[in-house]
Amino acid sequence: MDAGSAVAEEMFAALRAASLDPPGVSRASYGPGERAAHAIARGMADRLGLEVAIDPIGTLFMTLPGVDRTTKPVLIGSHLDAVPHGGNYDGAAGVVMGLALAARLRAADRRLPRDLTVLAIRAEEMIWFPMLYLGSRAAFGLLPKDAPETLRRTDSGWTLAQHMAEEGFDADFIRQGRASLDPAHIHAFIEPHIEQGPVLVERARPAAIVTGIRGSIRYRACRATGAWGHAGAVPRRSRRDAVLAVAQLATALDAFWDRCEAAGRDLVLTMGECFTDPVLHGITKIPGAVQFSLDIRSEELAVLAEAEGLLQDEATRIAARRGVMLDYGAQLPVPPAPMHAQLRASLRAGAEAARVPVLEMASGAGHDAMTFAGLGVPTAMLFIRNQNGSHNPDEAMDLADFTAALDVLEAAIAEIAA
Amino acid sequence: MDAGSAVAEEMFAALRAASLDPPGVSRASYGPGERAAHAIARGMADRLGLEVAIDPIGTLFMTLPGVDRTTKPVLIGSHLDAVPHGGNYDGAAGVVMGLALAARLRAADRRLPRDLTVLAIRAEEMIWFPMLYLGSRAAFGLLPKDAPETLRRTDSGWTLAQHMAEEGFDADFIRQGRASLDPAHIHAFIEPHIEQGPVLVERARPAAIVTGIRGSIRYRACRATGAWGHAGAVPRRSRRDAVLAVAQLATALDAFWDRCEAAGRDLVLTMGECFTDPVLHGITKIPGAVQFSLDIRSEELAVLAEAEGLLQDEATRIAARRGVMLDYGAQLPVPPAPMHAQLRASLRAGAEAARVPVLEMASGAGHDAMTFAGLGVPTAMLFIRNQNGSHNPDEAMDLADFTAALDVLEAAIAEIAA
Repeated sequence: MDAGSAVAEEMFAALRAASLDPPGVSRASYGPGERAAHAIARGMADRLGLEVAIDPIGTLFMTLPGVDRTTKPVLIGSHLDAVPHGGNYDGAAGVVMGLALAARLRAADRRLPRDLTVLAIRAEEMIWFPMLYLGSRAAFGLLPKDAPETLRRTDSGWTLAQHMAEEGFDADFIRQGRASLDPAHIHAFIEPHIEQGPVLVERARPAAIVTGIRGSIRYRACRATGAWGHAGAVPRRSRRDAVLAVAQLATALDAFWDRCEAAGRDLVLTMGECFTDPVLHGITKIPGAVQFSLDIRSEELAVLAEAEGLLQDEATRIAARRGVMLDYGAQLPVPPAPMHAQLRASLRAGAEAARVPVLEMASGAGHDAMTFAGLGVPTAMLFIRNQNGSHNPDEAMDLADFTAALDVLEAAIAEIAA
Repeated sequence: MDAGSAVAEEMFAALRAASLDPPGVSRASYGPGERAAHAIARGMADRLGLEVAIDPIGTLFMTLPGVDRTTKPVLIGSHLDAVPHGGNYDGAAGVVMGLALAARLRAADRRLPRDLTVLAIRAEEMIWFPMLYLGSRAAFGLLPKDAPETLRRTDSGWTLAQHMAEEGFDADFIRQGRASLDPAHIHAFIEPHIEQGPVLVERARPAAIVTGIRGSIRYRACRATGAWGHAGAVPRRSRRDAVLAVAQLATALDAFWDRCEAAGRDLVLTMGECFTDPVLHGITKIPGAVQFSLDIRSEELAVLAEAEGLLQDEATRIAARRGVMLDYGAQLPVPPAPMHAQLRASLRAGAEAARVPVLEMASGAGHDAMTFAGLGVPTAMLFIRNQNGSHNPDEAMDLADFTAALDVLEAAIAEIAA
């Protein structure tokens, strides 16, 4: 087994053992599982003779020195926290791949023209603290200054500041808007990550180069408000049925999806929550209210804008036809993040050189890479095939697929670091 | 004020006072509110000099003797229970109208050719015991023999037998399948009732002659089963989205409704409950399951049969297109009950004679009249205008409208009793 795969095999086993919480693993942001994972990464960095630094919020920088120590480094990495009872690979695979690459370079005694820094980011999984990309945004000094006090971890109810103190970190870093990462001083950021959907399994490829991360418009708590009434006694023209209204909206969105698909335009949309009120609803009552969520994602800003327009048009149509008011509530917009064209080309060339058949595909999920790309850092992602999706204990990545992706990265790194 | 309206005014005030439970009134089946209402009806019957009988399950028979005491009586009445925090008129108006008619006949010293029996039925509101038309079916000996033990009142958790014993009645009557009503010995049954929908208010008529009671097919707990997944990472062809599947079904049913409406065919349909599971769902998860109910009503058996066919066809289509399985679960079918043509003609003639502008319309809600019609008893219903629907504290019937309906019934009673 090559040096990189050996590092990966050892680290994945250690990570699983240190954060086991059957079924699956749990690595709470600023909690024991994440702490153990950072210790494992740091231990490996020490063994590989990397330069280790930790910023005041716990971000881990593990650097393989390059020829020119004064120029901007290449960063490779991801996060080490994991959802409760999640899988062993989401996030961790990116950090492990950075270290595995460093191990191969060390073993081959190769020296890159610039520093290669493996990055272990904190707190990416939003299930712990309700903030997108908490750890990477904090490292760039982008969090609201009151975040240490306003953010509470969903399991404990403690504030971010309390959990950071518990782990020995310094929330003043956030309060004062300090930064340990500077977009102007990063040559490139590469985030390897398991694919969280089934595309690579279905298309039988070990890895993919990500074309872009889908942006989204997301409404957490939409309300359709009609009128409650007797299911049998109210004639159609007097009904204000909120379920039929939401069905009309969903069907219109689905038809929009048909049109996008036919035109080859990227889109996924989800009404993940949709419910009548169990206290008020009944089999023989016309449903007077429905609450629902909307999550609409696309690589294209124009598709998101059209979807928003459709939401407004349908609200008007539904009010007129059905007497049901749609209130979408607050929106959380995240613009799409296209991946860097030159980095993608380098990875493609690496895949060809390594003879690894890769796919090119959008990332439907958000990642720390979004933070970097949003700040103008040349950014790319490499997906590794994974069974059964992520955020669940059945997540399953083959080491052979990890090694294939590592081969791509190794073959591309000279061009990336040039 | 005429003798009938005076009876009504007094009785409605007494009923409200005896069962006040702000907001509104509560008259639990075989509970204190219903008991008080029966006592009020009985007291009025005594004052009017009617012959009073009570069967072993508490059904009250209040008879104005006719010329021929040996022939089949005309029955007029309804139930006296009411939903929790409901209105004062649902059910009660039918019993009060029977007594008001008896009062008018007494005051005019009119004697009908046959007995007129005012009927106060028990336990019609299914919210108390989960059994359709419990009281009228029990009086005809139609309940399952184990009903006293298997039915539990939803508020107390006590069995029907326990509540009947508490009220001094005899559950053996049900266990032994005895009957106090015989379809072969009823000349006609008339059930006056407030309209529970807005039709008479919208059409500005005080009363309506019911053409028929809609039958229904009802599925309490349908399930759509797809697959949970990541909202952003799973491409469209791999999704099995249960919300979009149910939206497709609802939209297909709505389109069927359009076609029925265009063809003048009676239909109302309601998906009263529709919900993703709050434990499993999430804004960024493809919804893998939805539970919903279906309530489809029509005066026409053929429309109900077509609706059922459509449910099966859509299930096949949705499984093929979306990989989502629809399981409608157990069905509760209730055939439509057309009202008796000759009785309707008599009521129409009565309305003309009394110069009351009546509508003819279907009843969307079920009523005790359904039990009688289902057994072949010539049955009719008279609706009284009512504001704000029923089963809520805002139910509001004007005494003037009650009197108008009473005028119709009084003008028709000679022909009905002929």
